[in-house]
This record gives sequence, C-alpha cells and structure tokens, in this order.
Amino acid sequence: MKNYPFTAIVGQDKMKKALIVNGINPKIGGVLIQGEKGTAKSTAVRALADVLADTSVVNLPVSATEDRVVGTLDMEHILKTGEKRLESGILAKADQNILYVDEVNLLEDHLVDILLDAAAMGVNRIEREGVSYEHPSRFVLVGTMNPEEGTLRPQLLDRFGLCVDVASEKNVEERMEVVRRRLDFEQDQQQFEERYVQAQNQLSKQIQQAQILLPTVEISDRLIGIVADLSIELGIESHRADITVITTAQTLAAWKQRTAVQLEDIYEAAELALPHRLIQDPINDTSSSEALAMILQNKVVEHQ
Amino acid sequence: MKNYPFTAIVGQDKMKKALIVNGINPKIGGVLIQGEKGTAKSTAVRALADVLADTSVVNLPVSATEDRVVGTLDMEHILKTGEKRLESGILAKADQNILYVDEVNLLEDHLVDILLDAAAMGVNRIEREGVSYEHPSRFVLVGTMNPEEGTLRPQLLDRFGLCVDVASEKNVEERMEVVRRRLDFEQDQQQFEERYVQAQNQLSKQIQQAQILLPTVEISDRLIGIVADLSIELGIESHRADITVITTAQTLAAWKQRTAVQLEDIYEAAELALPHRLIQDPINDTSSSEALAMILQNKVVEHQ
Amino acid sequence: MKNYPFTAIVGQDKMKKALIVNGINPKIGGVLIQGEKGTAKSTAVRALADVLADTSVVNLPVSATEDRVVGTLDMEHILKTGEKRLESGILAKADQNILYVDEVNLLEDHLVDILLDAAAMGVNRIEREGVSYEHPSRFVLVGTMNPEEGTLRPQLLDRFGLCVDVASEKNVEERMEVVRRRLDFEQDQQQFEERYVQAQNQLSKQIQQAQILLPTVEISDRLIGIVADLSIELGIESHRADITVITTAQTLAAWKQRTAVQLEDIYEAAELALPHRLIQDPINDTSSSEALAMILQNKVVEHQ
Amino acid sequence: MKNYPFTAIVGQDKMKKALIVNGINPKIGGVLIQGEKGTAKSTAVRALADVLADTSVVNLPVSATEDRVVGTLDMEHILKTGEKRLESGILAKADQNILYVDEVNLLEDHLVDILLDAAAMGVNRIEREGVSYEHPSRFVLVGTMNPEEGTLRPQLLDRFGLCVDVASEKNVEERMEVVRRRLDFEQDQQQFEERYVQAQNQLSKQIQQAQILLPTVEISDRLIGIVADLSIELGIESHRADITVITTAQTLAAWKQRTAVQLEDIYEAAELALPHRLIQDPINDTSSSEALAMILQNKVVEHQ
Amino acid sequence: MKNYPFTAIVGQDKMKKALIVNGINPKIGGVLIQGEKGTAKSTAVRALADVLADTSVVNLPVSATEDRVVGTLDMEHILKTGEKRLESGILAKADQNILYVDEVNLLEDHLVDILLDAAAMGVNRIEREGVSYEHPSRFVLVGTMNPEEGTLRPQLLDRFGLCVDVASEKNVEERMEVVRRRLDFEQDQQQFEERYVQAQNQLSKQIQQAQILLPTVEISDRLIGIVADLSIELGIESHRADITVITTAQTLAAWKQRTAVQLEDIYEAAELALPHRLIQDPINDTSSSEALAMILQNKVVEHQ
Amino acid sequence: MKNYPFTAIVGQDKMKKALIVNGINPKIGGVLIQGEKGTAKSTAVRALADVLADTSVVNLPVSATEDRVVGTLDMEHILKTGEKRLESGILAKADQNILYVDEVNLLEDHLVDILLDAAAMGVNRIEREGVSYEHPSRFVLVGTMNPEEGTLRPQLLDRFGLCVDVASEKNVEERMEVVRRRLDFEQDQQQFEERYVQAQNQLSKQIQQAQILLPTVEISDRLIGIVADLSIELGIESHRADITVITTAQTLAAWKQRTAVQLEDIYEAAELALPHRLIQDPINDTSSSEALAMILQNKVVEHQ
Repeated sequence: MKNYPFTAIVGQDKMKKALIVNGINPKIGGVLIQGEKGTAKSTAVRALADVLADTSVVNLPVSATEDRVVGTLDMEHILKTGEKRLESGILAKADQNILYVDEVNLLEDHLVDILLDAAAMGVNRIEREGVSYEHPSRFVLVGTMNPEEGTLRPQLLDRFGLCVDVASEKNVEERMEVVRRRLDFEQDQQQFEERYVQAQNQLSKQIQQAQILLPTVEISDRLIGIVADLSIELGIESHRADITVITTAQTLAAWKQRTAVQLEDIYEAAELALPHRLIQDPINDTSSSEALAMILQNKVVEHQ
Repeated sequence: MKNYPFTAIVGQDKMKKALIVNGINPKIGGVLIQGEKGTAKSTAVRALADVLADTSVVNLPVSATEDRVVGTLDMEHILKTGEKRLESGILAKADQNILYVDEVNLLEDHLVDILLDAAAMGVNRIEREGVSYEHPSRFVLVGTMNPEEGTLRPQLLDRFGLCVDVASEKNVEERMEVVRRRLDFEQDQQQFEERYVQAQNQLSKQIQQAQILLPTVEISDRLIGIVADLSIELGIESHRADITVITTAQTLAAWKQRTAVQLEDIYEAAELALPHRLIQDPINDTSSSEALAMILQNKVVEHQ
Repeated sequence: MKNYPFTAIVGQDKMKKALIVNGINPKIGGVLIQGEKGTAKSTAVRALADVLADTSVVNLPVSATEDRVVGTLDMEHILKTGEKRLESGILAKADQNILYVDEVNLLEDHLVDILLDAAAMGVNRIEREGVSYEHPSRFVLVGTMNPEEGTLRPQLLDRFGLCVDVASEKNVEERMEVVRRRLDFEQDQQQFEERYVQAQNQLSKQIQQAQILLPTVEISDRLIGIVADLSIELGIESHRADITVITTAQTLAAWKQRTAVQLEDIYEAAELALPHRLIQDPINDTSSSEALAMILQNKVVEHQ
Repeated sequence: MKNYPFTAIVGQDKMKKALIVNGINPKIGGVLIQGEKGTAKSTAVRALADVLADTSVVNLPVSATEDRVVGTLDMEHILKTGEKRLESGILAKADQNILYVDEVNLLEDHLVDILLDAAAMGVNRIEREGVSYEHPSRFVLVGTMNPEEGTLRPQLLDRFGLCVDVASEKNVEERMEVVRRRLDFEQDQQQFEERYVQAQNQLSKQIQQAQILLPTVEISDRLIGIVADLSIELGIESHRADITVITTAQTLAAWKQRTAVQLEDIYEAAELALPHRLIQDPINDTSSSEALAMILQNKVVEHQ
Repeated sequence: MKNYPFTAIVGQDKMKKALIVNGINPKIGGVLIQGEKGTAKSTAVRALADVLADTSVVNLPVSATEDRVVGTLDMEHILKTGEKRLESGILAKADQNILYVDEVNLLEDHLVDILLDAAAMGVNRIEREGVSYEHPSRFVLVGTMNPEEGTLRPQLLDRFGLCVDVASEKNVEERMEVVRRRLDFEQDQQQFEERYVQAQNQLSKQIQQAQILLPTVEISDRLIGIVADLSIELGIESHRADITVITTAQTLAAWKQRTAVQLEDIYEAAELALPHRLIQDPINDTSSSEALAMILQNKVVEHQ
Repeated sequence: MKNYPFTAIVGQDKMKKALIVNGINPKIGGVLIQGEKGTAKSTAVRALADVLADTSVVNLPVSATEDRVVGTLDMEHILKTGEKRLESGILAKADQNILYVDEVNLLEDHLVDILLDAAAMGVNRIEREGVSYEHPSRFVLVGTMNPEEGTLRPQLLDRFGLCVDVASEKNVEERMEVVRRRLDFEQDQQQFEERYVQAQNQLSKQIQQAQILLPTVEISDRLIGIVADLSIELGIESHRADITVITTAQTLAAWKQRTAVQLEDIYEAAELALPHRLIQDPINDTSSSEALAMILQNKVVEHQ
C-alpha cells in the first residue's frame, strides 16, 4: 500500500507548514497536531516522510511499555551466553526519522517525559541492572490528539515546539476536492502517484535547499527584541517559547530562500509556536486567538 | 450445531443491508450493531459468514490480551531451540474473514485502537524483543454493543464504517414468525436448513455478482457535491464520513446491479454511515434522527 | 455426608418447579435463584442432582480464574515433554452436569460472559499460545444470589432462562416442619434418607418420562400468538424471552404427561421466565409483580 | 509462654458460654466475638483450647492468601520429581481444632466465603491444575472484630452460629480483679497456673460429660413451635437461625446435665443466636436489644 | 558517623522518660512518638540504643514487604539443594533490640498487625509452603509519626504501650542551646562525645540498676483501685490500659530506686499511657488534655 | 553536546546562589527549585556540575523503581555462580556527585523518603534476602518541580535544605540577552564555551577557596540567638530550619572570603532556608513573603 502524496493534501496550510519546517530543522522541537477524528492527521505525517531524504515514520503506540521505548535487556542473549546485553528500543529506531505518537494525550505521563527528554537531549540512555548504553536519538517528534479526549499537562505542552489545529473543510468545492482525490487514490494508487510525482520532487528539492541555507540565516537585534517583548506582554513564562519562535522564523526564512529573518517570519512563527503556551489555552477560544492576532499586529506596527 | 440461515432472519432490514454491503466490500470499514439483549445480533453475524465464499467468523473475546490479538513470542520454540520466533494471533486468523467483537464497548481502549488500525491499514505488525513480523489482516469488522451498557469514544465510533440499531419486533404476526422459525430451527436443524437452501444460494450468487460489478461503478460530481454539502450542513468534521457514504453508495449500486450511483443509493448509504458521526449522538433521539431524515429529504429535492 | 433429599424440601414450589424443568430440559437455559441468606438455595441445587440420572454438581467458586474455568496449558506436560498440551477446566467437568455458581453477582463480568456463551453454544473452546481445543459443554446452569448484595447487569440477567425468588416460611406450622426435618436429618442421615427413598425414586421416574415425552409436545399458533402479544405489551425487547416461555411451557406439558401445550403451561412458564426481563426489575416490587399477574390473567381471558 | 487459664477470666459470661457450647458441639457453627480493643478476646480463645481435649488454636492471619488457606501445589515436589502433588493448607491444620480469625472483618470476602463453606460442609477440596484432593475440615470457627472498624456483610454474619459482644468491666472491684490476676499471671505464670489447675480440670470434665450426653437430648414440638414463631415475629429470613437456636439449646441442656430442652435453654440460646440476624443490627442499639428481650419474655409467658 | 548522645538532648523530658522506661522494661509495650518534622525523634531513638547494653536499632522501612519483616523461603538454598529452608527477617534481627518504625502511620495495616502481634507474644512464626519456623522476637517497639499526615486506627493505637508528643523549643535560650550543641556535634563528633561520656555512663548504670530492682517492686491494692477507677471514669475500654499504667508505674519506681509504687508514679505513668486511649483523641486538644490532668489531680486528692 | 556554562546564565541570582552554596557545602541539604516550565532549571543543574571538581550529575527518573535507586540482587551473578551478590544502584553512583530529580513532586513518597534518608545519613544500606551491603552516599540533592502540578508533603519539604523560586525574565533587555546567548550557544557551542572559559575557571576557584575556608568560619552567640528567636516568632517547628540557616550563613561567609558570619549572611540564608518551612506556604503568596522580609528586617534592627 502506497502513502497518499503530501502535495495532494487539500488545504490544511498551517499543518503542512508546521510539518515542513520541522522536516527542514528538527531543532524546532516537533509539532503537536490537534484536531477531530477523520481529519487526515496520520496521512499527513506519513506523507511528510516521503518528501524527506532517508526518513521513515516510526510509530510509538500508546500501549508501549518503557522497555519497548527505551530498550531493555536482551533476554535471548542472556539465556544463550549468560552475559547481559542491552537491546535498543523505539527511540533507537527513531533516530534521524519521524517519531509519530497518535493520541499522545493517552500516553502515560512518564513515557511522554522520556520522549521529550530524548528529544531535547538528542540522546537516549538505557540503564538496566548495571549495564548502560547510550545512543543518538535525534528525531522529528509529531504527536496528534483530539482535544475532546483530554489534554496534555502544560508542562508537556510547552515542550512541543509548535502546535497546530486542523479542522475539516467547510467549503463544498474544497471538500469535494478532498473526497475526489481520496477516491481517485483508492481506485488506482499507481496512477495517482504519477500525477503528483513532479510536485513531490520539487518539494523535496525545496526542503533540501532550505536545509543548506539555514545555517547562514541571520536575525537582527530589533527582531529579537520584538519576540522578547511579545512573550512578556503575553505572560509567557517559558524562555523556550522565545527560542522556538526565533528558530522557526529562521527556518521559514530559509524556506523562502532568504538569509535574513523578516518581521513576517516572526509573525508566522509566533502563530505556530505561541498559542499553546498561553496561560488559558486559547486554542478553542476564538476571542483569545484573535487577541493574539491583534497583539501580533500591534507589535508589527509598533516596531516598524 | 448448524448456524441459523441468514435468509431466515425475520425483519431487521437495515442490519442485514449493512452486513451484506460489508460482505461485498470490506473497504466500507465494518459495522457496529447496537441493540438490546436478545435481538439476534450474534446470530446474524454468524449467518453472514455462511453466504460469503471461504469466510469464517473469528471471535475476539473482550478479555483477550494484546498478545493474543496481535501475536507474541513463541515460548515453546524459544525453549526448544533458544531462538526467538513470533507466533501470530487473532488478527492473523481474521485475515479474509469476519472479525467479530461482541460487546465491543467493554473492550479496552488500546485494543480497540489496535483493531481499528489493523482494519484501516489491512496489515498487522508484531514487534517483540527485537523480532518483527508483518502479515496482511484484511477483515470485515463487526462489533455489537448494548447502548445501555456504556458507549464508545467518538474517536472510535467514527472509525466504524457503518452503524445500525436493532430492536425487537413490535408487530405480533412478525414476532410470532420470529418465534416459530426459531422453534422450527431448534426442533430439526437439518430440515430447517433445507427449507432455505435455495434462498441462501441465490443470496451468495448476488453477493458475488456485486463484487464483480463493483470496480466499474461510477459516481457523478453532482452526487459527490451532495455528499460534501450534506456533511458540512450536519457539522460532521470527519472526511472519512464522506468517503464512507460514497463507497457504501457504490456498493449498493453494484448490489442493485447498476454501474452508476443514483441519489437513492446516497440516501440509503447516508442513513447507515452518518447517524453515529453526528455530534450529539442522535441514535437514541428520535427527533435528531428525524432531523437527519428531513435534511436528507431536502438535499434530494434541492439537488434534483 | 449425604445430601438432603429433594422431596424432603418443605414449600418453595416455584424454585422446585424451575429446577425440575431445567433438569428435564437443559435448553431452557438455567435458573437464577434469588433469596436471602439461609433459605436452602444450595441444598436444593445439590438435591436436584440426586434425582437426575448420572448427574453431579460442579461448583464454580467466585474466585475462580479464567484459566480454571476454561482450561489452560498443561505446564507439567510442557516441562516433561517440551510440547504444549491443553488441560480442560471447570467447563469440561460441567458437561452433562449441573454447573452451580453461588453468589453469581460477585463473579467477574467476563467470567459470567464466558459461562453464558458456553451455555448458549453448548461448546467451550480453549486457545492458548497457538494450541486450541474444543469440547462439548452442555450443562444446567444454576446461579444463586442475594439481591441485597448487588445485581447482575440486565444483559446477563436476560441470559438466564428462568428466575425465581425464595423466601423463608412465614407460617409457623410450615416453619416447624422445615426445622423438624432438618433436625431429623442432622440426627440420623441414613434413617432420614430411607424415609424419602420412595418419593425420590418416583420423582426420578417422572423426570425421565417427561424427557421421553418432550420431543413430541406440540404448541398451537394461537398460544404462540399469546406469547408474542404478551412480550410486546410488557415491552420486553428480547426474543429470547418468547422462546424461553414456549420451551418452558412445552417442558411443563411433558412434566404433566401431556403432548400439547395448554394455556396454563404458558401462564406458569411466563411466571418463571418473564419477571426478571421486565425493564424496571419488578422482582422486589409487589405491585409490578401483581401487574404482571393481571396482564397474564387478562391475556388468558382475552384469548379464550 | 503459657496461656492464661480459661477459669481465671473475670466476668464476660456470655462470651465464655458461647465458647463453651461451641467447644462441646462444633455443629453450632462458631462464634463471632465483637468488642473493643484490649478486652481479652484473643486470650479467651487461646484459653478455650486448653480445656478441650486434643485441641489447639490455628491462626488464620488476615493477610493469608487463598493458597495458604486452602492448600496448593507442592512446588518442591514438582521440582524434584516432575510430578504434581498438592500440599494442604490452614484448613487442613484446623481440622478437629479451633480456627481463629482475628479482625475477621478485614479478611477478604472470598476468603471468608471459603472459610464458611468449609465450616458448613466439614470438608475442604483443593483443585489446582487438574489435581484434586479432599480432606475433612471440621473446626470450631472463632472470629473477632471491633465493630468500630467496619462490619461483615449480612450474608456472612448469618453464617456464624453465635455472636456475642464483650465490653470492659465498669465495676471498680471487678476491674481491679481483672488487673490483679493479670499482674499475678505476668509475675509468675507457673504459680498462677497451679492456682487454677483444679477449676480447669473440672471444666474439662464437664465439657466431656456434656459431649456424651448431647446425642440423647430431646426437644418437644411445643418448643420448636416457639422458636419458629419467634423467628417469624422477628422477621428473620434465615431458617439457619431456627436450627442454630435449637442446636444451641440442646447443647445448653447437655451442659446443665439434662436430656430435655427447657424453655430457659431456648431463651439463652436465642440471646446468643438471634441478635446478629435481626435486620437492623441491634447489637449496638440498646432499645432493639431490649425489644428482643421483651419479645423473648412475652413468648415465654405466651407459651407457658 | 557517631550518634548524638542521649544525655546531650535538650528538653523533651516526656519523650526521654518514655524511652528510658521502655529501655528498662520492654513489657511496657513500646512507645509512639508524635511530633512535627525536624524535632529530633529519630536522633533520640538511635541515642537510646547507645545507653542500653548490647542493643542496636533495627529499622523497619515503611516500604518493607511482609516477607522481609517476617522472613521467607531461602531461594538460594532451594536452588542449590532442592530443599526448602526459611530465612529469617527483620523481626529476627529485632530480637533483644529496638525496632524502629519511622512514619508508622504510613505502614500498611497488616504489617502493623504483624508487628504488634509479635511484640505482644514475644515470638514470630514463619510459615511458607509447608515449612514453619518460630523464633523469639522480644523488642522495644518505637514508632514515630507526624499527626498532620494521617493517624493510626484506634485498634493499633491502643497496642502501643505509651505515647508522647514532642514539639520544638519555644524558649530562645533553650532553642539556642539545641542549635549550639548540634553545631558543636557536627563540627567535631569525637570531642563532643567525650564531653558527655560521664553522663552517658551514669545513665547506663542507672538503667541497669533499675532492671535489677524491677522484679521486687510492689504495688498496693489501693493504687490498683485508683487505676481501675480512673479508667472507668475516663471511659477507657481497654484493660490493657490499666495493666500498662501499673507496669509503667512499677518501672518508674525502680528507676527512682524504690521498691514500692507511689501515687506519683501512677500519675506520671497515666500521663504517658492514657491520653492516646481516650475516645476523642485529646492529644491535639488542650482542653481534653487538661481535663485528664484535672481528673488525675482529683483522683490523687480523693484517694489520699 | 556540551553543557551551557553556569556563568552564562542571565539573572536567576537566588537559584545560582542556592546551587553554589550547596556545591561548596553538601551538608546544607540540597535545594528544591520551583518554577514554571521552560525556565532553565535543568540547564542550571547540569551547569553547576561543570564548575565543581570531579562532579557529575546523576539523574533519578521519576519512574525509577526502589531496586534501581537502592540497588538489588545481581541476578547475573546468581545465575552464573549460585551465590547471592548485591549490585549497587543510583544512590551509589550519586556519591560525591549531584543527584538530580526533575519533577520531584511526581516521585513516589517512599522513594522520596529513601532519598532524603540517604541524604541525611550520607549512607545507603541495601538488604535483600539476607545479604546486606552499605556504601557511602553523600550527594548534593537537587529537585525541581512546577508548583502548578502538585506539591510535596510538608514532611518532605522540610528535608530539603533550601528552596528557591525561579520565574522568567520580565525585562525586555534581559530577556533578549537570555535569548541571544541561547541562540549563540546553539549556533556554535565551541566558540560559546571559549567566551566563558575565564569566568568559569574563576568561579571554580572561588568555590574551592570557600571549601578550604569553611571549617574555620565562626558564628557568635548573638547571631545564633537571632536565628532561634526568628524561628520561634515564625512558628517554625523544625530545629532543622535553625541548623540550616546557620550552616548556610557559614557557607555564605566562606564564599565571601570571611571567617566570621555576619548579620547579612543570616539574612540571605534565611531567605533561602525558611520560606518553604512556614506553615501556610507563602511561596506563592506575596504578602506572606513580604511579611517574612519585614520580620527579618525587624530582627536585624532589633539585634543591632
């Protein structure tokens, strides 16, 4: 079974942007996709891997045990040889790949902690019965959740770099297009794939170019000041928020083939990185979201 | 002990229709049968298998462990040979068959997840202690539940293709017929079976013909537009709903020996695929159900 | 220690009738005996086995594990031979016998499910680690419970064929007789047994004759109509209720050495099979129970 | 360390009477002693064993597992020989002895069930992995509990033959005597024991004589009628109550060296056997207890 | 690391008295020390061991399992020899020593029961899989708890012989002395120890002399009457309370080098043994504590 | 990946001071850092280790078991040799290092107890199945927690020597500096490290000098009196509070290269050691915190 092509996804621009910038720059710290059932969240994640070079999607099921995530003693080896040896787990497979957790809000707290620690350090360390082993674990973390089914603790929410909401299409033409493409895909996957092969190659190339450009992207002190000012005004405690806005803005600049961050990059990055860090979750609260937009707007004017 | 013949079931037309279209086209995504105790839900599921070629019913008991569902390490092989080997579980047996879960609302959430993931992907993947194995797992998923005894999370509800309610017969003549047939069956199963052998053969043949016709069934853009319009008006978030309505309508067309979907197919499919995806579960709420009927009615008029 | 003879039990006519018809015809589906502490429920169950040919009482303790009920891997055989073999459990022992569950309301739900499934199918299937085994499991299921200590889910209640209430004797002479017989029994069990040997033999013979007559018992459409009408009027959803009333009526007819069901058989059967299936459990509610009696009465008049 | 002599216990006449009649006749069904902390409940139980021939106290700790109570597989034997063998548990040790459960209200329900079943049948049956074994288990069951710390289910309460309350001494002279004897005992157990050796021997002899006389004790129909009448008037459902009153009265008669039960025996037996079986536990409710006394009184007058 | 010397503890006279009398006479039944965090409860317990001959402190951590407390099967011995052997646990180590349970209110109820049973009997009995073993277990039980963090059940509270409250110093000079000594101790433990060596030796000698004198201490009937009278007036149910007051008073007399108990000994003993046995815990209720003082006062006057 | 240098941390003076004094003098008893997500708590802890000689950070994950913390039986050794041997756990690794517990409020209570006991005694003792082993365990305990996510029991709170709150920067210039440094660090860790190499060396040297000076630091009786007076006035029960204030003040004096404690050292130490020991946690209550400041102020004036 083939994956649905990334470039064939209709609409959902914010989700696609959040996935692409993480694909370019894993240091952004992953993305949490919030949305109702049946809104193609999983499809998009699997599609992203196809446009990144040498990248696959590693699933972390919510019923996974700590041993399966972190790694554990290799019992077979012990039984055969009498010697302890560790075997690696999901975090080893996830290295240089996308680690995907569907319904991340159902994952046990201490597993989310382990995950986010590994994501933050880029390293996973196994220790079992006196044997220890450390391996790199640099991955793009993508979590999805349905906000109707509980939330993440603010502590954990803060550690996802970006957060986007997805909703179904409300425009008939767009929705027909979603359905038509899906039916076409179901009917003949080979033919459907061929239709998008050019768009897919172009996207892959753009991502690679952005990755090359990224280390050269600069940001002015004026823009850093705007970010700090914004966080203070919004009452955001986490300095991680500021860093993420700037890192995302730099990645967006590279994506747009520029080597200097502009105010619009900050604006777009803030829309992806700040809402889930506001104190009273404004995600499902249009007025707060509008308030954020207005503050962003004002900052732009103020700092021009 | 023989199974009660599918064609001997009195009434329950929606349930029978939902089972048959899934039997023709497993891509519809299964059916959830809701109804009170003693309304022959299990009987109907076992009866369906008899009219499908080379198909049996695989039970998934609610007390099943993840290991029994997904498969696990073959301890006997390890003890004998010292080598790890996986042995497959219920999902392997279910391939090309009907997977039946009685009282699916009592199944642990993460097992329901595993089930629906396998159903969606058509594949089951076992990973235990560094050994992994993947096998096809394409099945018709049938769940039953008594709505008096708790519900499914909306997230899971959405992933059942169709959903029907069953109730006992309220008409004396019909109810007498139900009872008489059951008594006849209990008294002499051989003789009872012979009475229905012709009807059973004809049903099997009709199903096979529909399976052959299905890939050629077409649907017009006008009808796709009606489906999208309907979902938006009903506030249904899930694009999966739209796809299921269309796929079910196509199967119904094939069942009726047509190669083009008609408005009536959409209407019938929507009745099976939409009610359980409405926001405030209207299943036990006649007025909402009537509202759905009226909206369907209006759409039909509007789009004629 | 000997069992107290069935024919020496004072009063409790409904309970004795329910036990006898199940003894004659296990297809009735068992009996649930509800009553307070110290009302000889267990005594009656053990006494029944003595008047049935080749039948013993198999206890299912509420603390039994699934493995002990269903059967499991024979670890001794594996350790000795390295080969997997299943050993059967309580359900195998119960075949052709009475399966007795004291305080059935304290049994875990999934064990009750397993029990009632086996009772319904007449078969138990063990599957453990890739080995499977199936054996007949046809038994008379008798459960007892004290309604003061919790209830059964309606789903499970419906699957007991009959249900009777027992209460202590309120008449002094009767109660003295209960006590006198018990004291006599305690003092000299041998002598007490001899006193009832003739009555016991006669009862056994009557049961055997009824078993021979049962397959020839007929029921008219008029009576089937009364049963269906009654269930609809009482709002009983379960078709199983109708079947049970008729099967019980047929068994009662055989017990009375007739080959045709009469209205009085339906009446008696309904009293045993319907009360626990009414929506608001009328068992402890005299008025509802009277309502049932009145409706039964009216139906009789109406259909004469 | 020696036990405190039974005959040295100051006051607590009801508790001593209840223990002695059970010592004479284990068929009475045990005794539940209710009382506050520090009221010598354990001391009395251990003291009873000393005056019964060949009897010891077997403790059942509340943390005991089912395996330790009932018996289980003998793992040592399996490991050595590869054959399954059962080893017996506390119920085997308890045979012909006193089984003592301190804080019986803290014991898990299913263990209390097992205990009372064994007590009722006089037999314990072990079944583990296909091996089964049955041994006699006839014991005097003595439970103690502090009513401040929870209660027993009525179902279980009914299955203790007798029930007595104990309280501390409220009279200064009596209380001084309690303390003085205890101090004397602590100071020189040998000397203290010698002081009571004659009283102890006499009590043992009296118990043995009562055991010999017991099978010859008769009870008139008039007295049986009084017992039945009393139970009905008190709304006691359990026939076990009637039997226990009569058995206890017979034992009291034997204890008093008579061969016919008298009304006073019934009266004394009812005081021990009925209060804990009344619907609203009147044990801690003086007025109900007085009501019981008055009804007993009236019955005596009425039936004279 | 050395222990802080007992004689260097500033203030806390009641706690020190309670510890010393238990050190002299373990039959008093231990002491429960209640107090807030940081009030040197643990320090005092460890310090006591240093002034008792051949005595050490055995810790019982609240997370200890029953096996570690009571003892269990020696798996190593079984694996090596195939024979079952028991290995002893904490209760064996505690024999002739101080058994110390910090935060005893957090210990699981059934472990507290085991502990107090062993303390009462002076014996611990291990029974595992048919093997049993009994060893002496005579120890001074010392528990500490912070009353802010839950309480002990009255049942268990009663079984601690004595109970004292500790609080921090409220007088500046005293508190400075506490701090100064602690700082001196931290700075040079060797030098600090030397400063108290004489006081320590004298205390040890006094304790030994009291132990020799104790068996000869007598108590008059008049004083026993006062104790009984007091318990009745205070509504104390437990006779254990009376015994403990008298035993403690005898020990106090021996400590004061007398061979006859005096009224003041009773008074002091009652202050240590009664408050935690009053019905409404008056420990944190000054008025009740004052009431106790007043009643004690009155008894003294009344009985002079 | 390198650690962010301690000297590059912007602001957060109290946290840095609390870490440094613990680094100089582990007897202070650790520090609990309270603050919101993303405020660099973990960064600071890892940074501290770099400026202490021969010190590393040992993580204690909240999901750690008691066995992993304390140590346990070495199963490999047992399987190989048949002899029991203990292997050490996290507390052994922590010796002479920093033991870091992120989200310490989520750690199970009995693990926190074990931790704080080891911290207090400087020793860890393993006992498993009759084998015991003791090793030094002297570490600087650093815990972090987000007060939004639950609290520690007062009992445990008291056992952390110091407690500080951290919050994000509210000044734009400062916050820009935080962000700029972090971005610089991320861009080129090598170059960033070089920029701070001199400051880091100087800090390390200062810490070493303070450690040498510390044993010679003296404190006057007047200052001890102030501390005692302060604790009494604030209603602090724990004498540990007084000791910690003085020990911290001595360490601060050494840090400031003095050999005599001054009033300002007491003032600073009290700010770190007292707030979390006040009865109604004033940490999040500005007014109480101000009250503390005022009382401290007054004491200073009063005692001048």
